[in-house]
Amino acid sequence: MTTKSDYYAVIFTSKKTDNETGYEEMSNNMESLAKKQPGYLGMDSARNEIGITISYWDSLKAIKDLKENLQHLSAQKFGKEIWYSEYHVRICKVEREYSFKKD
Amino acid sequence: MTTKSDYYAVIFTSKKTDNETGYEEMSNNMESLAKKQPGYLGMDSARNEIGITISYWDSLKAIKDLKENLQHLSAQKFGKEIWYSEYHVRICKVEREYSFKKD
Repeated sequence: MTTKSDYYAVIFTSKKTDNETGYEEMSNNMESLAKKQPGYLGMDSARNEIGITISYWDSLKAIKDLKENLQHLSAQKFGKEIWYSEYHVRICKVEREYSFKKD
Repeated sequence: MTTKSDYYAVIFTSKKTDNETGYEEMSNNMESLAKKQPGYLGMDSARNEIGITISYWDSLKAIKDLKENLQHLSAQKFGKEIWYSEYHVRICKVEREYSFKKD
């Protein structure tokens, strides 16, 4: 993703239940919905014992719009409670960053 | 971790090289150093294609102190460049959060 001086990160950490029914479809839907959303900058994701998905956004407004769309989507489907035994959402302002990349 | 109204997250995302020499030791050392550091609140970690480690801190001062200690530690050992083909560090202020946990 392009580095911007002022942007936001949504950190979603979760533990899953054993119920996989519809999980992959929901997860793919959420991801493509996020990527189409205005203000979307990028996403990082990994899962072992816990899952971590971080999405990056150009404003708090974009995050608010995303939340409303995701709520609409999950109201049409199931509750998150089917797939997650727990989750935590943190909305953060990126204040500083640095990176390294091998040539 | 205890939820606090005002705290910080350090998001470390990385891609590894194939060189595992000393990686686990370094990784364990970093983790125990962080946990002993004043201002430490917690840590979340997962790895598939990319690795994500998020540590939580009560102030920017604690993160600055951590950075200095980690630099000192890695100067004694190897550079991060041995284990990582790329990494990205983001220092973030947690502005809002919510969570769900099954009974």
